Parts: sequence; C-alpha cells; structure tokens
Amino acid sequence: MIDTLSIPTISDIKAAHRIIDPYAHRTPVLSSTKVNTRSKASVFFKCENFQKVGAFKFRGACNAVLTLSDKDAEQGVATHSSGNHAQALALAARIRGIKAYVVMPENAPKVKVEAVKNYGAEVTFCEASLDAREGTLAEVVKRTGATTIHPYNDSRIVAGQGTAAVELLEECPFLDIVMTPIGGGGLLSGTALAVKSINPDIEVIGTEPVEADDAYRSFKEGKLIPAYSTNTIADGLRTSLGELPFQIIQKHVDDILTVDEESIISAMRFIWERMNMIIEPSCAVPVAALFNNQERFAGKKIGIIITGGNVDLDNLPW
Amino acid sequence: MIDTLSIPTISDIKAAHRIIDPYAHRTPVLSSTKVNTRSKASVFFKCENFQKVGAFKFRGACNAVLTLSDKDAEQGVATHSSGNHAQALALAARIRGIKAYVVMPENAPKVKVEAVKNYGAEVTFCEASLDAREGTLAEVVKRTGATTIHPYNDSRIVAGQGTAAVELLEECPFLDIVMTPIGGGGLLSGTALAVKSINPDIEVIGTEPVEADDAYRSFKEGKLIPAYSTNTIADGLRTSLGELPFQIIQKHVDDILTVDEESIISAMRFIWERMNMIIEPSCAVPVAALFNNQERFAGKKIGIIITGGNVDLDNLPW
Repeated sequence: MIDTLSIPTISDIKAAHRIIDPYAHRTPVLSSTKVNTRSKASVFFKCENFQKVGAFKFRGACNAVLTLSDKDAEQGVATHSSGNHAQALALAARIRGIKAYVVMPENAPKVKVEAVKNYGAEVTFCEASLDAREGTLAEVVKRTGATTIHPYNDSRIVAGQGTAAVELLEECPFLDIVMTPIGGGGLLSGTALAVKSINPDIEVIGTEPVEADDAYRSFKEGKLIPAYSTNTIADGLRTSLGELPFQIIQKHVDDILTVDEESIISAMRFIWERMNMIIEPSCAVPVAALFNNQERFAGKKIGIIITGGNVDLDNLPW
Repeated sequence: MIDTLSIPTISDIKAAHRIIDPYAHRTPVLSSTKVNTRSKASVFFKCENFQKVGAFKFRGACNAVLTLSDKDAEQGVATHSSGNHAQALALAARIRGIKAYVVMPENAPKVKVEAVKNYGAEVTFCEASLDAREGTLAEVVKRTGATTIHPYNDSRIVAGQGTAAVELLEECPFLDIVMTPIGGGGLLSGTALAVKSINPDIEVIGTEPVEADDAYRSFKEGKLIPAYSTNTIADGLRTSLGELPFQIIQKHVDDILTVDEESIISAMRFIWERMNMIIEPSCAVPVAALFNNQERFAGKKIGIIITGGNVDLDNLPW
C-alpha cells in the first residue's frame, strides 16, 4: 500500500503527467495585452478552466484513480464534496470503469448534483454539516469497501495538480514568478514542487482572500491554523489548508498574498470582459493580487494558473 | 494601386498570414466532450474570441492596414462601424503608427466608443442611419485623405479572415467540415478560399439566423438579395452580404443552414456553461446549426470558427 501522505517528488509529478496525459486536455496558455497594460507585467494564463470538468481538479483525481491497485479499484472510490473534486473523481472513475460514491449535502445546487450523476457517480445525500458529511462518507466506505480520495491531503492528488505547472513551464520556461490561489493547498503545493524542481529561481506565490486567510496566517506563523472565517465569494477557497500541502508550502513557497472581496469581483469581471473567458471567483484571486501589487510585479514575467470556470450564470456578482 | 475587389488567392491568404503573424494571437483550438456527446460529432473550435480585440476581425483589418502603401498609410485609415471592425482597424492603425478615423452612430454603446478611443482612433459621431454614416465617412475621408477600409467587401480583409482557417487546418488537417457564421461574408468567403485550396474534399458550410437570412436566400437563388429582416440577437450578422464575398461563396461554399433565435440563445448558453468560454451570439449560430442537424453531422469531424466574445455582461439573453 502506498503512503498517501508522503511528499511527492518531481518523478511522481512526471509519472502523473504520463498517466493522465491520454485523458486530460493540454490546456492553452493565453495572454492579454489589456492585462499586461494594466499590470505592467507580462502575464501567461494556464487555462485550467478549459480542462475536463472545467477545473484543474481533474488532474489530481485522474492520477489518484488511475494509480489505485486493481484490487482497490475494484471496490470503487468515494469522497464527500459539492464542488469540482466530486465531478473530477466521478469522471476519473468512469474512465477507469469503476464506481464512484459521492456524498453531497442535501442543499447542494441541483446543477452540481446532476453534473456528478451525469458522470455516472452514485450520490448519497446528507445534512449540510461537516460532521454529517464525514459520518455519511464513513458509512458509504464501510458498506462498499471503496477507497476514500481526499481532495487535497493526498500525495497522488498533489502530484496530479503539479502537472499543470509542468505544462506551463514547458511552454513558458522564461517565467520569473508562478501564482495560484490557495484553498486546501493541493494546487499550490503541487505547483511549488514542480516549479522549484524544474527551476528553483522561479518564485512561487500563493494568493488567498483576506476573508479566508488561514494559509496566509499558517505560513506566517509556521503552524497550521484553521480558517476562522470563510466569508468569501471565492467558494473554492473556503476550505482549510491541509497538513500535507502545508508541509510542502512551508518549504517551497516564497510568499502568500491576500486580497479583499471587492478586488476579487473586479478582477473576475476584468478577465470575463477583456479575455472572454469564464473564470470562477477563486481564480480571480491571483489576478487581483497581481493588480493590487503593481510595484512588486511590474516588468516581471508571471504565470497564473486559472483554476476553473464553474459558476452559476444566473447568479453573477455584478 | 491594388484592386481591392479582386478575389484573393491562397497565396494572398498565406501572405496575409505571414504579415499578421507577429501581431495576431495564434488562437487555441479547443474541444469539449459535452459538445461531442450532444452532437455525436467530433468538434474543434478555433477560438477567435481569444484573438486581439476579442474577434477574428483583427486578422483582416491588420492585413489591410499593413499592406497599404507608405504613401496611402501616411494619411490614415477610416471606416464606419460600431462593432468589432472599428476596434480591429483602430488597433491595426496603432500598430502601423498611423491614424484611424472611425464614424460611429451617436447611440453607440459607450463601452464600444471607449474601446475604439482606447486604441487611439479619432471618433466622429453621426446620426444612427446608414445614410448618415456613409455621408459622415465621406466627409471624414475628404477632409483627411484617409483610405476607407470596408469591413468585408475588400480582398485584403477577405484574405486576412482566411488565415484563421489556415491555422485551424494546420492543427486539424483531418476535418470533414468547416462551419462559420455569415454576416457580411468576409469570414465565410476567406475560410472557403483557404479550405478549398488546402483540401477541396473538406465541406464548407455557412450558417445564418433565419431572422437575417439574406446570404441563405442569395445563395439558393444565385443572386444577391439584401436582408429584409435583421431582427436577430446575433448583432454581428445583421449586416447584408457583400458582393465580393458573395462571388466567392457562390463558387466555394457547399451549403448554408439557418437557425432560429431560440436555438442561438440555447447554444450560446451551452458553450458558456460547458466550455467556460464567452462567445457572442453570432458564433452560437454554427453551434446551433450543429445541434439542430444531428443526422447530418453525426460521426463527422467538424471545425467551427468562434468569431468573437464581445458581449454586454449587464445585458445577457437569459
């Protein structure tokens, strides 16, 4: 049995890249004169909003599911999630031809439930509390023997998420800085491992809403501090930083910047209007950090990983 | 002086490609499992919504402006337009370092006026009728000596628009069909010339709203018939087919399909939600034709040129 809480190496990330390559989109890297003019930097967006299931999460889930032993795989995989990880895991399981069991709160948006079901997963509803979700997941796992795949506190997931940065640096080896948002930390930690292994001179910067700044505070204080507020529009970043990602972030990330809600909404709209891309609020967070810190970023070549584009078009923040 | 109403050759299109290459984005070709599942086809979207100024129009305008003689260029370029062509011409003129004069109706949306001004063009306002626009443009040209660049009835424009199909076929040489929308016909005619020169076995299909079906009727009857209705949400397609594009379309286009308004809005929302791309209603027209004609397209490899993404986020059709 592999240790799912070990720190992945660049070999693990490269292996993940080979494993998911036949199934994942190689997403484009786009740039925009309007973004460059406003930021006075040269910015390269790795567009994971065009990834399968509309988010980078497919990379990690696909790697985790495809590296399960045949024996484990036979009994399926399970998670509790109402977000992109649930869809990603459901699709990865379908690719492998195994079952996915997803626990979702009974108040989850119908469109998200349908998306998970459309990928062939079995959905079990529970009350909308973390206790209920974890309890129901434990029951599902007990009944089915499925393997729980955590959305970020898992080395296979972290290795998978790191593959986006591998592709970004293949296309843009000249970058000075790579930025991502931070939710549970799977993307930032995978990105930091990949970037620092490929070129340790490239800075890696995490970005977070002020309103959910547990990673910022944990990073500054050197110990894991849970989120005490999650009052942010960036719904993908409300989750608390995981232990495995935190270990990696402490060692390999150069800095974490925070941004307020108004900056997030304004950056999100800027990208929609000027780049014609639908990005979710979470990935407007590094864009907002870019715009808010012009003196720091002017003249630099900056890669930003756009994490996803799953938004409700009937409920936009403007 | 070059004949701006001659039919371009593939050499003209390839020359245009070399000329605009340093300035235009090489836009990505994206695919979507959800689109393929719904259409039962394999669809490849050439994403000109990520082009400079957010539309393919930059290709033609850039080619027209950069191929002007130095003597003509000195006096600038002019057009009347409230759409993407105005922004495209303004940016192309800025790249060449010459003046652009744009006549816009006084009721043009402020955001479009600002966009044109931001690219450095001089805007002259007039009443919102075609007569007033043409009259005002004639005055501007008389005063300045600028060269009028028509948005589609111009061989340099047609050659420039054809470069999108050249890139699409470089990346996807295996296509069975290429589809575009039809407004003035610049994109469809350039596409047809490029595609049929590269591989005459590939079908080229134009698509149009039922509510602005002048190209469909002209194509079927073999003579140019002006639009008698332009009551369509696809604002980029309200313009009547031009003479030069019509000559080319008659010879090189295989078919024209029409779609109703409801299908356009539904296809537009499908692409926004499932592909996380902002597309304007005009480029939902070929997507609607794809979805409405499943028996015709099932099993085929289809390229669709996504023309642009300039929409008003405060005024969406759902």
